[in-house]
Amino acid sequence: MPESDGDGNSLLLTDYYQLAMVQAYVEHGLTDVASFELFVRKLPPGRNFLMAAGLEQAVEFLESARFGADEIAWLRGEGRFSEAAVEALANFKFSGDVDALPEGTVFFAHEPILRVTAPLPQAQLVESRLINLIHLQTVIASKAARLVLAARHRPLIDFGLRRAHGAEAALLAARASYLAGFAGTATALAAMRFGIPAVGTMAHSFIQAHASEREAFANFARSRPRQLVLLLDTHDTEAAARTVVALAGELAGEGLRIDGVRLDSGDLAALSRKVRGILDEGGLAGTRIIASGGLDEPEIADLLDGGAPIDSFGVGTSLGTSSDAPALDCAYKLVEYAGLPRRKRSAGKATWPGRKQVFRRYGPEGRIEADRLSTLDSDEEGRPLLVPVMRGGRRVAPLPDLPAIRAHAAAELASLPEALSHRTSGPPLLVEIAPVLERLAREADRRVDTA
Amino acid sequence: MPESDGDGNSLLLTDYYQLAMVQAYVEHGLTDVASFELFVRKLPPGRNFLMAAGLEQAVEFLESARFGADEIAWLRGEGRFSEAAVEALANFKFSGDVDALPEGTVFFAHEPILRVTAPLPQAQLVESRLINLIHLQTVIASKAARLVLAARHRPLIDFGLRRAHGAEAALLAARASYLAGFAGTATALAAMRFGIPAVGTMAHSFIQAHASEREAFANFARSRPRQLVLLLDTHDTEAAARTVVALAGELAGEGLRIDGVRLDSGDLAALSRKVRGILDEGGLAGTRIIASGGLDEPEIADLLDGGAPIDSFGVGTSLGTSSDAPALDCAYKLVEYAGLPRRKRSAGKATWPGRKQVFRRYGPEGRIEADRLSTLDSDEEGRPLLVPVMRGGRRVAPLPDLPAIRAHAAAELASLPEALSHRTSGPPLLVEIAPVLERLAREADRRVDTA
Repeated sequence: MPESDGDGNSLLLTDYYQLAMVQAYVEHGLTDVASFELFVRKLPPGRNFLMAAGLEQAVEFLESARFGADEIAWLRGEGRFSEAAVEALANFKFSGDVDALPEGTVFFAHEPILRVTAPLPQAQLVESRLINLIHLQTVIASKAARLVLAARHRPLIDFGLRRAHGAEAALLAARASYLAGFAGTATALAAMRFGIPAVGTMAHSFIQAHASEREAFANFARSRPRQLVLLLDTHDTEAAARTVVALAGELAGEGLRIDGVRLDSGDLAALSRKVRGILDEGGLAGTRIIASGGLDEPEIADLLDGGAPIDSFGVGTSLGTSSDAPALDCAYKLVEYAGLPRRKRSAGKATWPGRKQVFRRYGPEGRIEADRLSTLDSDEEGRPLLVPVMRGGRRVAPLPDLPAIRAHAAAELASLPEALSHRTSGPPLLVEIAPVLERLAREADRRVDTA
Repeated sequence: MPESDGDGNSLLLTDYYQLAMVQAYVEHGLTDVASFELFVRKLPPGRNFLMAAGLEQAVEFLESARFGADEIAWLRGEGRFSEAAVEALANFKFSGDVDALPEGTVFFAHEPILRVTAPLPQAQLVESRLINLIHLQTVIASKAARLVLAARHRPLIDFGLRRAHGAEAALLAARASYLAGFAGTATALAAMRFGIPAVGTMAHSFIQAHASEREAFANFARSRPRQLVLLLDTHDTEAAARTVVALAGELAGEGLRIDGVRLDSGDLAALSRKVRGILDEGGLAGTRIIASGGLDEPEIADLLDGGAPIDSFGVGTSLGTSSDAPALDCAYKLVEYAGLPRRKRSAGKATWPGRKQVFRRYGPEGRIEADRLSTLDSDEEGRPLLVPVMRGGRRVAPLPDLPAIRAHAAAELASLPEALSHRTSGPPLLVEIAPVLERLAREADRRVDTA
């Protein structure tokens, strides 16, 4: 296996300190049951809701995470781990419980996305990769959901592979954007692995390699791609549109239909109008216009507001890296150990203690009215959002498949309050904190102060 | 293999349109030799130089890229590829040439980072993953280089795993930041794979799991991590520093030395001074202070400008996602096909035709004075930056190892013009365009216009 490969189920895909802490836990007998909750402290600018994603991959990781024999040998070679600790690591098998938001669920700051309840060393060791997996897809699904809202009902295609941060990022971005409402992906391997519709057009290099644009278009058409989309902006977009019209009759004679054209640069509002006019006059009213080229939410919304006749958008960098908010301020924090609620009080990073549930109340038209964070066993009004996922290291039930997650995500977007569903949107929902949590926090602080 | 895994050498890790274009190239006999160059069109705000990285992984990919049997079966099942095209794909083996900037080289807009010269279908098919690999590490190395300059001579540690975009992103970010001058990584698997020094401290959860901070510190110390660094900000940073002092004597009796303390939240300038004072008074003048917690270039520079007694920094999110500039406007463009220079003229995206070299001239103290972009065979003054890497699908020589790359990168940073090496830096170097390229561009345009 090449060194750059992800090897995503290696337990060595962890922060080094986790190994040191596991050693200390084992040596000092801190192996009681712990609960950790993963949540986002604060939404980044440009986000007023988030969409949970990545649970499927997180559960696969927990089911299969192991140290390889070479990794155990490397740990021994480090010379800083006791044989007891190395043995404990070599025998690792996750035996804990997981509760989580179903993928596609809309959530806000302080709400647990996922809770792990397991012997402390286990729950600690899986932290880094769990965050890595859930964070990535939640970042991308949250961005994709905003793009879906900005594009209203136009199909969006993931063009993000080349600028995504590595192979796994590209594959999981295709998955996360599809579940959030994208119509397809250009990443072939993601299409194969996840069953996402594959979409492809053509590149400038194809046209440049030919002596003329007309020859390039004709050659591409005659190799009969299932969707025939011709790229117009290699040299002169309007001239290329006229070439398409001139060629259409000839191709029709061979039973070939031009499904669409793509504009990848220039003033897309003006060019899409001119191209639409040329195509319509040329009898190609059914040929769709696809726009791409550095598009993000504002550009898409502006184009549609201005009535640009664009049928579909390809979105690459802004989706694949979530470039306006590439990271979330998320944390995986110990909330209970050995039956006692815990929290940290660090400046600006204080957390709510105890195992928690989110209760969501709905108003007219099924829109979210309020979320309340409370203890697990409280009988708050509203729908509890976290559901049981694993017990004793096994799935309690099969997780929803991608089409089901996608349907859930669409329903979640439809449930957003008006102020959050529009692109010029207000601040995120403020999550209510149940009084019982404030009491638990005071109690936890008191125990520390008198320790 | 889990679906989320990178599988970075799969040729199906490509944009779907590459497959359609390869089919058309094969069917229409466009299999002549093509040259593609990968370059950055424009530096993002916040970058006035870039650092090339990722060549080792790019070459590994070209050496081993293949379609798996299941992938070929999937392609057949798609029903849109001819048997001739599928056969060509199944037999793919890269047989071309590569020239590139050595990893760690500083570069600017329009300068080729890498050139692939190969039969057109081959050069086309590898595009998406090549960009994906080179882009990622170049993004991270460029960010890391700026952090290294901001931190002057203080060691920096990569804490980026949890918020990096997936496993491959985390592993390659550790590599890219180390080559750019970071001192180590917290990502254990990256330490093992790339031989990067592994660094670890402790987490808040370790302290929260104990009844008292003192007990947590003592337990951690007694499990003898090679570097003993205690985390101070779980409850009250100054109180924790006093606990460290109180404990130090007891631990010294057991032969245990406290190497460092870590501050992860709050006013780091004020807290580092107070903690330094407490440690010094307590006889722990040799105990280092490590700061972390959402740090980026401005915070690090400000802390050091203000004289904060911080010895080392852990940098996570801002490094691991290059959060202020998570993507580069890079492109892989056909510059020559069948012996003729090519270019595209798209608005704002015009490219320079022909196979190119960068010639760098140096001024006093070995600092970069100017870069000139010209044709491959021109006899411009200055050091040519691109070097031969592969010929006929094989490496011309072993690539430099990571320590050698790191030394080269340090020399490159030392060669930056004064205006670029300071954090309040000026605009990037403007690359000179040799007149011969302007002539080639006019000729290429004329050929298209008369086609």
